[in-house]
Amino acid sequence: MEIHILRLSHRLPRDERISTHVALVARAFGADGMTYTGQHDSGLEDSIKRICNNWGGKFSVSYEKSFKKVITSYKKKGFEIIHLTMYGIPVQKMKKPEKALIIVGSEQVPSEVYRLADQNLSVTGQPHSEVAALAIALERLNGMDHEFKGKLQVLPSKSGKHVIKTSM
Amino acid sequence: MEIHILRLSHRLPRDERISTHVALVARAFGADGMTYTGQHDSGLEDSIKRICNNWGGKFSVSYEKSFKKVITSYKKKGFEIIHLTMYGIPVQKMKKPEKALIIVGSEQVPSEVYRLADQNLSVTGQPHSEVAALAIALERLNGMDHEFKGKLQVLPSKSGKHVIKTSM
Repeated sequence: MEIHILRLSHRLPRDERISTHVALVARAFGADGMTYTGQHDSGLEDSIKRICNNWGGKFSVSYEKSFKKVITSYKKKGFEIIHLTMYGIPVQKMKKPEKALIIVGSEQVPSEVYRLADQNLSVTGQPHSEVAALAIALERLNGMDHEFKGKLQVLPSKSGKHVIKTSM
Repeated sequence: MEIHILRLSHRLPRDERISTHVALVARAFGADGMTYTGQHDSGLEDSIKRICNNWGGKFSVSYEKSFKKVITSYKKKGFEIIHLTMYGIPVQKMKKPEKALIIVGSEQVPSEVYRLADQNLSVTGQPHSEVAALAIALERLNGMDHEFKGKLQVLPSKSGKHVIKTSM
């Protein structure tokens, strides 16, 4: 299925690592890319590029000023707008679409986002982490057996670290 | 079931928010507490205390210098030692114990941790986030329907924010 992530209100330096984790989770669970709003951050874009370069996949990150523009454009392309928020209904009740734009906020999410979303979904209803909420939602939508053909690949191991370098 | 988290090598200011997310995810998915090594951080401890005070539950955070001491003491109490690492075997193959100490590292995990663990498990085998890996592992072990009786409770909503203040 087609999944894109919208990360709202990225703030520097506060969200540097959290937004990086959001992007890496999105990639690992099979999303095609992430658009973020807030402060532009070439460091974030570069670090995700580096990961893709080494570990494979076509995941891309881009910046956009207006969240509304992103939501409207994905709506037009037939994507279901899913907003992850601790105030939403349980993710267990998610209606699974063919194509989804998944929105993860940082601290203050504008009320318009709640109205524009087709589904406002909560993972546990407790305060925790947009990184965790995204992983749980993506696993439900898209599983976690995605294949990446990169220069580096992990050879799963019971008690050590084994990484294969391919000739890609 | 009984679950405790061991967060390795907390660094300030770098891991402030990530370790907070780790602790909040642990709490939301029903772990009883988190021990962390690395740098002592009363800010981390206070912010989790504040969350528990408002949102309920008995989750506690404590500091310990030696990861080995924590692992040994939980082994003695009959806990299975589960280390989450991108180099491990797929979490889908997890053997589910009655009691678990779940270890999440930061960047460089000592090789001893791999040897001391009963299970080294990977969530996707790709580089992403210890916060996400923990959420996925905890959901598999412990589900995500945990009840918290706090001063604040979310009333799940399709399109807004509804929080109830109880008289606890």
